[in-house]
Amino acid sequence: MTGIKATGEKKLMLFSGRAYPELAEEVAEALDIEPTPTSAYDFANGETFVRFNESVRGSDAFVLQSHTAPINQWIMEQLIMVDALKRASAKRITVVAPFFGYARQDKKHRGREPISARLMADLFKTAGAHRLMVVDLHTAQIQGFFDGPVDHLFALPILTRHIGAKLDTEQVTVVAPDAGRVRVAERWSDELGGCPMAIIHKRRDPEVANEVKVFDVVGEVAGRTCVVVDDMIDTGGTIVKAADALFEEGAERVVVAATHGVLSGPAVDRLKNSRISDVVLTNTLPIPDNKRFDKLTVLSIAPLLARAISEVFSDGSVTSLFGGHS
Amino acid sequence: MTGIKATGEKKLMLFSGRAYPELAEEVAEALDIEPTPTSAYDFANGETFVRFNESVRGSDAFVLQSHTAPINQWIMEQLIMVDALKRASAKRITVVAPFFGYARQDKKHRGREPISARLMADLFKTAGAHRLMVVDLHTAQIQGFFDGPVDHLFALPILTRHIGAKLDTEQVTVVAPDAGRVRVAERWSDELGGCPMAIIHKRRDPEVANEVKVFDVVGEVAGRTCVVVDDMIDTGGTIVKAADALFEEGAERVVVAATHGVLSGPAVDRLKNSRISDVVLTNTLPIPDNKRFDKLTVLSIAPLLARAISEVFSDGSVTSLFGGHS
Amino acid sequence: MTGIKATGEKKLMLFSGRAYPELAEEVAEALDIEPTPTSAYDFANGETFVRFNESVRGSDAFVLQSHTAPINQWIMEQLIMVDALKRASAKRITVVAPFFGYARQDKKHRGREPISARLMADLFKTAGAHRLMVVDLHTAQIQGFFDGPVDHLFALPILTRHIGAKLDTEQVTVVAPDAGRVRVAERWSDELGGCPMAIIHKRRDPEVANEVKVFDVVGEVAGRTCVVVDDMIDTGGTIVKAADALFEEGAERVVVAATHGVLSGPAVDRLKNSRISDVVLTNTLPIPDNKRFDKLTVLSIAPLLARAISEVFSDGSVTSLFGGHS
Amino acid sequence: MTGIKATGEKKLMLFSGRAYPELAEEVAEALDIEPTPTSAYDFANGETFVRFNESVRGSDAFVLQSHTAPINQWIMEQLIMVDALKRASAKRITVVAPFFGYARQDKKHRGREPISARLMADLFKTAGAHRLMVVDLHTAQIQGFFDGPVDHLFALPILTRHIGAKLDTEQVTVVAPDAGRVRVAERWSDELGGCPMAIIHKRRDPEVANEVKVFDVVGEVAGRTCVVVDDMIDTGGTIVKAADALFEEGAERVVVAATHGVLSGPAVDRLKNSRISDVVLTNTLPIPDNKRFDKLTVLSIAPLLARAISEVFSDGSVTSLFGGHS
Amino acid sequence: MTGIKATGEKKLMLFSGRAYPELAEEVAEALDIEPTPTSAYDFANGETFVRFNESVRGSDAFVLQSHTAPINQWIMEQLIMVDALKRASAKRITVVAPFFGYARQDKKHRGREPISARLMADLFKTAGAHRLMVVDLHTAQIQGFFDGPVDHLFALPILTRHIGAKLDTEQVTVVAPDAGRVRVAERWSDELGGCPMAIIHKRRDPEVANEVKVFDVVGEVAGRTCVVVDDMIDTGGTIVKAADALFEEGAERVVVAATHGVLSGPAVDRLKNSRISDVVLTNTLPIPDNKRFDKLTVLSIAPLLARAISEVFSDGSVTSLFGGHS
Amino acid sequence: MTGIKATGEKKLMLFSGRAYPELAEEVAEALDIEPTPTSAYDFANGETFVRFNESVRGSDAFVLQSHTAPINQWIMEQLIMVDALKRASAKRITVVAPFFGYARQDKKHRGREPISARLMADLFKTAGAHRLMVVDLHTAQIQGFFDGPVDHLFALPILTRHIGAKLDTEQVTVVAPDAGRVRVAERWSDELGGCPMAIIHKRRDPEVANEVKVFDVVGEVAGRTCVVVDDMIDTGGTIVKAADALFEEGAERVVVAATHGVLSGPAVDRLKNSRISDVVLTNTLPIPDNKRFDKLTVLSIAPLLARAISEVFSDGSVTSLFGGHS
Repeated sequence: MTGIKATGEKKLMLFSGRAYPELAEEVAEALDIEPTPTSAYDFANGETFVRFNESVRGSDAFVLQSHTAPINQWIMEQLIMVDALKRASAKRITVVAPFFGYARQDKKHRGREPISARLMADLFKTAGAHRLMVVDLHTAQIQGFFDGPVDHLFALPILTRHIGAKLDTEQVTVVAPDAGRVRVAERWSDELGGCPMAIIHKRRDPEVANEVKVFDVVGEVAGRTCVVVDDMIDTGGTIVKAADALFEEGAERVVVAATHGVLSGPAVDRLKNSRISDVVLTNTLPIPDNKRFDKLTVLSIAPLLARAISEVFSDGSVTSLFGGHS
Repeated sequence: MTGIKATGEKKLMLFSGRAYPELAEEVAEALDIEPTPTSAYDFANGETFVRFNESVRGSDAFVLQSHTAPINQWIMEQLIMVDALKRASAKRITVVAPFFGYARQDKKHRGREPISARLMADLFKTAGAHRLMVVDLHTAQIQGFFDGPVDHLFALPILTRHIGAKLDTEQVTVVAPDAGRVRVAERWSDELGGCPMAIIHKRRDPEVANEVKVFDVVGEVAGRTCVVVDDMIDTGGTIVKAADALFEEGAERVVVAATHGVLSGPAVDRLKNSRISDVVLTNTLPIPDNKRFDKLTVLSIAPLLARAISEVFSDGSVTSLFGGHS
Repeated sequence: MTGIKATGEKKLMLFSGRAYPELAEEVAEALDIEPTPTSAYDFANGETFVRFNESVRGSDAFVLQSHTAPINQWIMEQLIMVDALKRASAKRITVVAPFFGYARQDKKHRGREPISARLMADLFKTAGAHRLMVVDLHTAQIQGFFDGPVDHLFALPILTRHIGAKLDTEQVTVVAPDAGRVRVAERWSDELGGCPMAIIHKRRDPEVANEVKVFDVVGEVAGRTCVVVDDMIDTGGTIVKAADALFEEGAERVVVAATHGVLSGPAVDRLKNSRISDVVLTNTLPIPDNKRFDKLTVLSIAPLLARAISEVFSDGSVTSLFGGHS
Repeated sequence: MTGIKATGEKKLMLFSGRAYPELAEEVAEALDIEPTPTSAYDFANGETFVRFNESVRGSDAFVLQSHTAPINQWIMEQLIMVDALKRASAKRITVVAPFFGYARQDKKHRGREPISARLMADLFKTAGAHRLMVVDLHTAQIQGFFDGPVDHLFALPILTRHIGAKLDTEQVTVVAPDAGRVRVAERWSDELGGCPMAIIHKRRDPEVANEVKVFDVVGEVAGRTCVVVDDMIDTGGTIVKAADALFEEGAERVVVAATHGVLSGPAVDRLKNSRISDVVLTNTLPIPDNKRFDKLTVLSIAPLLARAISEVFSDGSVTSLFGGHS
Repeated sequence: MTGIKATGEKKLMLFSGRAYPELAEEVAEALDIEPTPTSAYDFANGETFVRFNESVRGSDAFVLQSHTAPINQWIMEQLIMVDALKRASAKRITVVAPFFGYARQDKKHRGREPISARLMADLFKTAGAHRLMVVDLHTAQIQGFFDGPVDHLFALPILTRHIGAKLDTEQVTVVAPDAGRVRVAERWSDELGGCPMAIIHKRRDPEVANEVKVFDVVGEVAGRTCVVVDDMIDTGGTIVKAADALFEEGAERVVVAATHGVLSGPAVDRLKNSRISDVVLTNTLPIPDNKRFDKLTVLSIAPLLARAISEVFSDGSVTSLFGGHS
Repeated sequence: MTGIKATGEKKLMLFSGRAYPELAEEVAEALDIEPTPTSAYDFANGETFVRFNESVRGSDAFVLQSHTAPINQWIMEQLIMVDALKRASAKRITVVAPFFGYARQDKKHRGREPISARLMADLFKTAGAHRLMVVDLHTAQIQGFFDGPVDHLFALPILTRHIGAKLDTEQVTVVAPDAGRVRVAERWSDELGGCPMAIIHKRRDPEVANEVKVFDVVGEVAGRTCVVVDDMIDTGGTIVKAADALFEEGAERVVVAATHGVLSGPAVDRLKNSRISDVVLTNTLPIPDNKRFDKLTVLSIAPLLARAISEVFSDGSVTSLFGGHS
């Protein structure tokens, strides 16, 4: 005989970077597996080293990293993990980045700027990634930055289910905190049964020099429960000013919901000290205890990631998780 | 001696596809050159053939094609032109597509869809294009779809100069006809001195089944001159419904301004028969006489293209044409 | 446990563009499947949209499109289908183009021309195609234009079986209508038992200016049944002039056989009004009823495509379908 | 000041492999330069080493190698030279291969064969070549195998000028020795003023088993001076059998002309001992003294290569050397 | 039903070039298969032709070639085999090159040199190789030259087992014959239980002009059994001079062990005539009978290759064959 | 006229990352220019932003970044700078990384490890770098990791000039602190006039379990001035233990010289508290005041970088700076 025949097999393996191992644990548990044992550390000069402690040959590898601060550190670690998998003969490599870093640098705002989101997509491709899995991209166009399949998951059903159970949706007005979020606000409005919408229009103050911004509320908010929706809360500055503007226009209550809790610098203090009554986030990024506060609710993204990974592995349908949207 | 030395030279050449040769003529005239003589025709079965009638070796080639209907035909012709230039040793090839086709398919709206705008960017790259020059992309993220420099030009100054001269800007409210245009509306508002803004919110009618949309006006428009701004007018359906909604809310006058006059199917009739008083477009796409009507003004994009081509050729600054934005 | 193991599966799926769905239906029937339900339409400005209505994840996808007029339209649609399949995680994508468009532009005939056949091969690769399946390429070298496997199928057995049953091969002389078809004529000659051959030599008329061509018959045809063989019949001009030249040299009967019935413009009238007694084609391209005429026979290519697809899917041998040739 | 400006310069440099340095010397002389001094040798185990003895930084490098036997050796040396130039910062690299090796393997004749001509084109690209320059490709489609500009030169004018001066063209019939050369024969016929043509049709002998070929002459040759034209003479077997067949059909004289004198194995003896009266070749491949014989004329290709290199360097037109053909 | 489902299968196939078919036979036997029947020959002008005589569609193909002299010939043959496999739809292609050619040209020693080892890695990639399998690379960094998985096997256990059984390791000093082999010597030292080490330091003779080298022994060797270890023995010059220097410093016995027996030119005579008592090699390269001599032992590498191929095919672990090293 | 001709120009521009701007200032001063004004900062969540404040169109851009800790941060910044330059139409981009990060991960030491040095080379290529300029790579093979020209500079002349002036070279023994540095030690030995050499052999202690290393001195050092040479000093552990071993063997004085002063963690304390009398480094990496100590001398690498950049810009010869080595 000139060859050896065998039945093809496939093997799902989950790999976790060091940015937020608890999330990987949660996902693994939902899949009823363990993350693959991995040695990872930094050399004295900051160079990152990774080694997997089990054979990964032929595996369908899912590499989960949370793009939290220090973000360059964690993206580089994920790139190095992908390189190691490629060189160790993993069969297919999916980068799982629930919050996709640098997503806000998705275009040149002015001349001589990078488009870092495209750069990151290309770096992952170069390292050896075949696929991406992400949650709520800052703009959906970023899907097109990657030359291959992107599984774009939505936290919307998780967030709206929580908000819908908590508030009287008759009283709710959905508010987009800036021009870039209006589409998201429309989706919320549809999901909550067609409730009205308002938008915060940031415009230059013509009476003051240099880019000072005035927050205009476009739409009716007096007496309403305003749900301000965003893809992420970073320093919290915009969202708190938006809330102030809403209260000024007579809003009765302001609730904030977002997928990604970046919560940089003064964010937690700003939110705690604001008149915002509730903040709802998911754990696509780690939210350590010292960033948690009374009015904050954190919903887990792990079950969604686990279901999506399972569908991808078994050639099922990710789209079906969201009624056809992607 | 082991070699021959000579001074480096560069040569700008302009090439025009057959979609809209008048625009190329206009650009050439502004540059004080002629488009390179080119033979182009279709074979009986529709295959496109192109041949340049002069040596293009070493040239800095700008290939202008207007992505008008039949758009697949014209994009393919431009790809074939780029291939011919590459194989004929042009030194640098810039695809000039004032309206970039398929820009609206810039993401997967639902599962199992293409991202055709990225595909087009890749096809141009594969054919041999080094650079792109475009006007007012549907979304700025499309810049990131091309793996190379993109000169992104803005018609905004041309349009606002015209509108600002014609209307009393004190009376103007800028209106975004849907969620995707809010950012553009903000730019208009800033450019016209900080005038107020309104947004058309399209939402499902909860009382009628199946995706019927209600046009809600978010913001104040009663008694105002509404300038509805968009990147393109295609069939005109949305824009006319938006105008109706504005009049219903008490708008006194509705003016429409957009960069790209796609003007497909019923567009001209809809606009003519609407209560819209003025429509302002540029000629990034051809607008033949039978699509012109009394209240339509068409501003030429050719001077802008010529200036940008000249800056690119002479290693000047395109960004400087727009005060640093890109 | 650190991973999940499962048996590998593969799934053949057939996708059809809109150029010639009847052929896809025929192929599907031969395979005992259905083409995957697909939504495809053009926007008002001519942009093409495609969406698959079933999950294609992990599939072994065969994308059938007939490169008939308007050919740029249908090639672009096929490229967009491939992009959508790639982004939807199809495992392997085979472009099935029974007639491969632009095959005649397979070299630069003069300076500053494109090599569009290579360009098309590269565009399919860029869009995401892993493999090509084609029938009777205009020149076999086009196989080498694609960076990957090409299944090159031959209609020769189908055509010669038909001709051999119909004519007295003792009386037959095989005729190459121009220099490029001599090899094909040799294959026919061998297949029909070594019958003699003649060639039409098109040369400039030295007595008339400008590229006027004289049709010289090289070889003996007086009193013979001439079978003029070609890969395609486009406008029919060459083939009819060849037939005239053959009759002039005393041919008794002229029969024409070709794989691809392009039948552009005046082709049908020319053939009908000619002294050619029989025309035999396959349906690699659609031949609608209004192009059919009495002396035309159309043989179906579908069974061959179905067998080849089945061999590819099951890792069988396509070569074996043709006794080792490819 | 933030930068340093300088005028761009370019420098033509010629590099020669070891296969046929005399040709490079001839080309260099015609260009009035010297080939760049180069160290090249083989290690004891056959590994090839190359080093250039002068700075090549920024040069417009032309790398000339003759693909003569041992051909794998010389192609590999040329690849290594290109790699060294790329890594030494040459600005542009043109591979000059007057006879392009492996050109006959330009398609799969049967299943499971390589397409080595495409492979060679890709290998040169990978090593760092930007451009190819070749003479009389076996099939013109090979131009399309290289992803970049190919300068395809023709020896036809050199050969026909010589033949036209030597023979009475009224007496000449141009003969294609097989199906693949009919197009070339047509060009010769046109170039010599429209003289008649004949073709050798090789067909299986139906009376003898196994692929034995009969040489049929298609066309009239009795009493004529037959000029058998080919792109190359390799072992000479076909050409001599073709001559025999022509004499059998009454040819008065047989002259052979070809661009590439491969002259492998028994070729020289076969030609010497044949009734062929004249053999005309060029020196795209080395023809050492021991392969030269009385009735052989070798015309130099060097002036043509030098002119083409000069045109490429100065952004002139190579096409113009051949009246627009390429 | 819209598709056909089937269980995935995989098929190991072994292909052998013509450089050293006996090794492939040995490997095949160990795997209990036959090498795939293959037609390979050279045309008269040296062009190589390869065709596989069985379907290879979907196979997991291992292409074994020994990079022995004439090395360019055999590397080119292997590239052509890979191309043929790619175009014949092999699923995965692993280049098995037990001795990886050009490994010594792994950096630029001086300006304007190639890095031929990287070039070879890229050529294999371009031809279509997905993976490499090699034994004892000249420098381990060459793994990084290939953009994909490299199975780097070690002959060390085979060699040390043999030496350990033959010599009293208490008496052994391991000697690195030059700076580049010190790491290898360290591995030997560890493997043989921590025996001492010495190094040959080649330095310029300051009293003689022009690069004359003095062989200094660094370390104690008087009265010891010196095992000089190297990755390859090429012309034997260095190793014999090293042995001389060792004897001069009082060594009692000198044994030489290396993985690759290049044995070029004077190697065999030099070794035979030297005072070296034993030479141990493996058969990564063919060592024909006329190169064998009394004190030479050749150990077979075939069982190691067979085990590694088997692990790769079955998604096992190659690393585990060497206790985790790679 | 159909085009515009102009003389080609080139413009050198220097760009500096934020890791070590003082070095860029020094290089700029030597070139008599200014680094291009650049805005660079980190967002609150650690994302890096870069924008150039002058047009870079058509420039020959040199992007200098020191790969010091936090190294992932600075490499990512450099990648982003390259992307911004590419998209802003810089003509040629050279990454200047005097210490090339991750160089020690230049091979897989064990299975399932990355080859991060290759990965970094690929990431720079992907971002848009055409060329690399580096000083004293950890292993010279890393040149081959980059697919393009690498200018590999040597600090050796700078260091040996300093050492040669300071010590009596008659008394000097050059010491390689481990197997990987023996070649470097040989170069030092040659450069200092052929002085003797010793090597530190690290071997497992057979009497203690688990990888405990014994430092054996191979070679004579008693009474000598030992110059321990290395490419970098990271934590200083190895170098100090090497010095101890040398003193134990009777060395009179130990001096340490290395190109790259990584000086991580305990390095400075270890060196200060050791019996090493002199440490000589260059400033390829920043050595802030708090890391400087009495017996440390830091030599500037800036003049070398400036000369090399100048040669590259003017198409001169970098090799000539080192007498042909690279």
